Amino acid sequence: ARNNRSIMPSNLKIYFSGSIRGGRSDVDLYGRLVEQLGKFGKVLSPFVADKTVTDASVHEGAAMTDKEIYDRDLRLIEECHAVVAEVTQTSLGVGYEVGQAKALGKKILCLYRPQPGKLLSAMIRGAEEKGSFVTRDYKEEDLPEILEEFFTECFARTHKDSLDWTTYEPM
Amino acid sequence: ARNNRSIMPSNLKIYFSGSIRGGRSDVDLYGRLVEQLGKFGKVLSPFVADKTVTDASVHEGAAMTDKEIYDRDLRLIEECHAVVAEVTQTSLGVGYEVGQAKALGKKILCLYRPQPGKLLSAMIRGAEEKGSFVTRDYKEEDLPEILEEFFTECFARTHKDSLDWTTYEPM
Ligand SMILES: [Ca+2]
Repeated sequence: ARNNRSIMPSNLKIYFSGSIRGGRSDVDLYGRLVEQLGKFGKVLSPFVADKTVTDASVHEGAAMTDKEIYDRDLRLIEECHAVVAEVTQTSLGVGYEVGQAKALGKKILCLYRPQPGKLLSAMIRGAEEKGSFVTRDYKEEDLPEILEEFFTECFARTHKDSLDWTTYEPM
Repeated sequence: ARNNRSIMPSNLKIYFSGSIRGGRSDVDLYGRLVEQLGKFGKVLSPFVADKTVTDASVHEGAAMTDKEIYDRDLRLIEECHAVVAEVTQTSLGVGYEVGQAKALGKKILCLYRPQPGKLLSAMIRGAEEKGSFVTRDYKEEDLPEILEEFFTECFARTHKDSLDWTTYEPM
């Protein structure tokens, strides 16, 4: 089962949050992140990694108006079990989504690539709570291990050894 | 009473949200905003407008660690009746605070100075809800009117003519 764990999608629903209007310089990385997240569950927000969605887009995927985008994203955040946010590119929307997700009691992983002369927001860094709100400084090569640790820690603390992502029902 | 309304502090508690680690280029404006907000209630977060707090500060006022900053700000957001956020300078922390405030059912005013080549996040613009979540594009000279409208609309819809900010109990 250890082999299957990392390659089979489970019933876990993951909301991926990344910058859109705040800047799209990390969009390629978002794509690789969404692909890796697919090993742990279903990613509800693949449009965040869609290269045709730019920082000037007034539509994202099928959603057209700002209200439609907002309503869709809030619905997906309510539906998900975990939010994984790439927080390096400063973004109001990512902050808003993480704040909403925290208030809704979702499990949260924030991923930050340290930048010279910049500090990650205290509202992200200071929210740390073992097993439910995790922030990790990372380099891309560390992602597989960080993701495995997060999902194991947050969704299988009591059954770590027998965890089977293919059939796991988180709620 | 019309004269008193604009100059006397009421029992309303206001949380002002502005960028800190996202960038401090608007800190002077934050100071003028906090001063104007003082006409409508008590501002719980004057440290946001403190010029000695920089984007590299690891403390804000009395709070020293990121967890202390986070815990203080979340407590103040829970305590307030209204959040007023200046959202022009892109900030994760401002987004987080507005997201938390929305989830807690607070009244929210987001103030945005339109920028060439930039779009305000759909997670702010699309959250509009009459009488509870208001986003206004503005120039600084419009602030007195915008603030008066927001507080009247959100806190005195049924008693607009007799509203007295000096004694008003919002909860
Ligand atoms: Ca703060």
